[in-house]
Amino acid sequence: MFESARLPQKMDKKTFKKLEPKIRESLLVPQLEMIEKKNFSTIIVVDGLDGAGKGECVARLYAWMDARHLICNAYGDPMDEARLRPPLWRYWRDLPAKGETAIVFGSWYQQVLRNRIYDQTDDQEFGNELAKIRRFEEMLANEDTLLLKFWFLLPREDQERRLKKIGKKKNAARHVLADWAALKNHAKASTVGEEIILETSKGHAPWFVIPSQDPEYRDSAVGQTLAREMKLKLADGETHSVAAPPVVGGLKRKTAVDAIDLTAKLGKADYEKQRDELQARLSDLSDRRRFSRNGMVLVFQGNDAAGKGGAIRRVIRPLDPRIYKVHSISAPTDEEKARPYLWRFWRRLPRRGHIAIFDRSWYERVLVERVEGYAGHGDWLRAYSEINEFEEELADFGYIICKFWLAISASEQLRRFKAREDTAYKQHKITDDDWRNRLKWDQYTIAAGDMVDRTSTSFAPWTLVSSESKHHARIEVLKTICDRIEETL
Amino acid sequence: MFESARLPQKMDKKTFKKLEPKIRESLLVPQLEMIEKKNFSTIIVVDGLDGAGKGECVARLYAWMDARHLICNAYGDPMDEARLRPPLWRYWRDLPAKGETAIVFGSWYQQVLRNRIYDQTDDQEFGNELAKIRRFEEMLANEDTLLLKFWFLLPREDQERRLKKIGKKKNAARHVLADWAALKNHAKASTVGEEIILETSKGHAPWFVIPSQDPEYRDSAVGQTLAREMKLKLADGETHSVAAPPVVGGLKRKTAVDAIDLTAKLGKADYEKQRDELQARLSDLSDRRRFSRNGMVLVFQGNDAAGKGGAIRRVIRPLDPRIYKVHSISAPTDEEKARPYLWRFWRRLPRRGHIAIFDRSWYERVLVERVEGYAGHGDWLRAYSEINEFEEELADFGYIICKFWLAISASEQLRRFKAREDTAYKQHKITDDDWRNRLKWDQYTIAAGDMVDRTSTSFAPWTLVSSESKHHARIEVLKTICDRIEETL
Repeated sequence: MFESARLPQKMDKKTFKKLEPKIRESLLVPQLEMIEKKNFSTIIVVDGLDGAGKGECVARLYAWMDARHLICNAYGDPMDEARLRPPLWRYWRDLPAKGETAIVFGSWYQQVLRNRIYDQTDDQEFGNELAKIRRFEEMLANEDTLLLKFWFLLPREDQERRLKKIGKKKNAARHVLADWAALKNHAKASTVGEEIILETSKGHAPWFVIPSQDPEYRDSAVGQTLAREMKLKLADGETHSVAAPPVVGGLKRKTAVDAIDLTAKLGKADYEKQRDELQARLSDLSDRRRFSRNGMVLVFQGNDAAGKGGAIRRVIRPLDPRIYKVHSISAPTDEEKARPYLWRFWRRLPRRGHIAIFDRSWYERVLVERVEGYAGHGDWLRAYSEINEFEEELADFGYIICKFWLAISASEQLRRFKAREDTAYKQHKITDDDWRNRLKWDQYTIAAGDMVDRTSTSFAPWTLVSSESKHHARIEVLKTICDRIEETL
Repeated sequence: MFESARLPQKMDKKTFKKLEPKIRESLLVPQLEMIEKKNFSTIIVVDGLDGAGKGECVARLYAWMDARHLICNAYGDPMDEARLRPPLWRYWRDLPAKGETAIVFGSWYQQVLRNRIYDQTDDQEFGNELAKIRRFEEMLANEDTLLLKFWFLLPREDQERRLKKIGKKKNAARHVLADWAALKNHAKASTVGEEIILETSKGHAPWFVIPSQDPEYRDSAVGQTLAREMKLKLADGETHSVAAPPVVGGLKRKTAVDAIDLTAKLGKADYEKQRDELQARLSDLSDRRRFSRNGMVLVFQGNDAAGKGGAIRRVIRPLDPRIYKVHSISAPTDEEKARPYLWRFWRRLPRRGHIAIFDRSWYERVLVERVEGYAGHGDWLRAYSEINEFEEELADFGYIICKFWLAISASEQLRRFKAREDTAYKQHKITDDDWRNRLKWDQYTIAAGDMVDRTSTSFAPWTLVSSESKHHARIEVLKTICDRIEETL
């Protein structure tokens, strides 16, 4: 998860200087209105990796906002009075009044995170701790609290670089030493963080993942998100479901999908050799008795004309036709529209031991339905966690799940569209819709990036495939499927 | 829990005959509107104890409503196609379209319930299964489903009587045999049912507990509740938080609080002897070293003038003044109003090993705030589960929790009110508010009954105490506290 937030996101100082007064104003205006109206309080949870500059960012919020109505509560290990009472007591004690804003450092997630990193809780205990937090946050939201949670993300090498820079200073504070210790657990902390975010990002208490390599980008992202959320809350008094990552400043945000390397190529002879080998392997794997206890669900999404159909044909070639089915998903029928959107996919689930191949899928909810506005804001936002839960259900039952995003460049797409128009037997494959969607290329890319960020899980990972060369894409797809089956059986 | 639903609730056939046409109309009007508008579907989950007459009740719904748009789906053990797919598949397959109503027999709760009764799941697994159901139901509600769940409750002796009646018939169906088997597990099934309802009654998917001894009462309760909920849903398109038990027909509903036996008496000499013994026992228990690892939370609620203060004074008499504190709760201050309503109680939590005594408490939320309309409908309804979670948190930390409802009759209250007015040093204890509340006696009784039904849990049970004789009440309170401490240490 959060592939996009791991990409280097930068903002030069000049852009930041120009942007800063705007952010200040966009924060102050809603804050003053909230102070006057006293109709809700704001709680900002600041969490994530040590050394990501959480303190710096909070300092900036102090400078930007009306500091008389902004409290920062930092919690370390509980002391005296707190130790003698239930764990949540100290957070309850410090809840801000309506009109006030509290920043929470070392929140109710800290202990859960730490217990998990150091293996002091098993899956069940961890699950229970998160369930408790969900109930607490639901109650806060119901009691007129705008609850926003920021997760500061920093790649390991940047964390180390930052620490080295601080380390040079004499008399470094104790918390810096702690940060050095945390560096060792970087990988574990990242995984646990993802699990926590997956389980506790709700419409009424969303997590925002903040790429923190670049301080100016980081603080702009936090400031702009906060301003937007306060404004939304003031506008209708309802908590919005707003878990989408923020768009920052005038900058075009880079997503995981933008970062796919499209240069990979594969010659015809190599392709045919590898294809034949992989198809033989797939045929063998799908015939095994163990496979019949699992079954498989394959999802193909990608840019229009990226070659989903062609890749699927290469996958089914070696399979026993009695055990697979390809489902081409287009607009829902009236019957389907009259029921929850996942209904049409539940209906198409394969039997145990069988394979269902989806040419487009439930992900249309967060792609075309989001971009074209067929699904409301709140609806496509909650779809991320609904989809994760759906796929977890499938994985728990035993299905092996592979999801492919086939990517091509805009220019390659144009070439293929034209070729389709020029070839008689391909004309049916190109429609006005395709041309229309192409005009929204950037919006579709952002939607695809968010989708990968929020739904690539350990039990159902996304594979991002460059399809600029169809040969390359088909081999990647076949290889991924074979590897996934092999590691599962 | 659900003490009230266990009381005999009856409706004579004549009343029923008069009521029936009204219920039919109140069901048909919203059903037809829903069929026409097609803006949501209705799912009715029918569950609870075997032999409670679920089938009969559904048959009546068929007769009352437009049967062409009503489907009844009954699920037993999964067969063939369903066994080869994830457990929820068959329920997904049969989801009703918008405008349609589906009755679900043998719902997604069946397997969970059965696994738990036969000890095939431990606490954690059971918790996970319920969490999955919560997510499924939340999704349904978000996708325009009105989801109503009815739990049919039947005391063991009635279950047996019903079975005997059916048993006499020749060629009884197989499910009757199953019902006989279920009788053995009556107690366990009841407890598991309570746990399930506690954990899965949500505003968007409420459980209604239906006393099922009397078929006429039972079916009227279901019919009227269903009619009310469909009407509410049509009125604003939002799912209402409506978990309160239904008021049925023109009948005054009996609650657990109504059923308290107020005749208990205790002479002065007996009282003084028992009081001295119990106070010595309490003094001893609270001095034990083990007690200092727990601590205690006592809650006193009751009718005005029932003698809460007097009972509390007898409890604190033998206690070390350094370890207890009495909190008299009146209207919240401005500071308290600006925060979640539980805040002022969290602030007053005792240290570990200490005792906090609440003269009125967080239960005012579902008593005075409900009756006087200080808290909105949705707000006091969600308070039941918030309070249960709060008390579970306290119990998990180690506090021993006792909650007392001190009950007197309306006539005894009048006598005490007058005595207060006539005695100079007691005049401060009687206010206009007391007289005003008295006018709403019935509403307060219903609120108190619901409160006991929904918040009497294994970790924080209610003790209902007749306070008609103050002597009797004080001894009951002291005895309960001593017993609870003893069984915990």
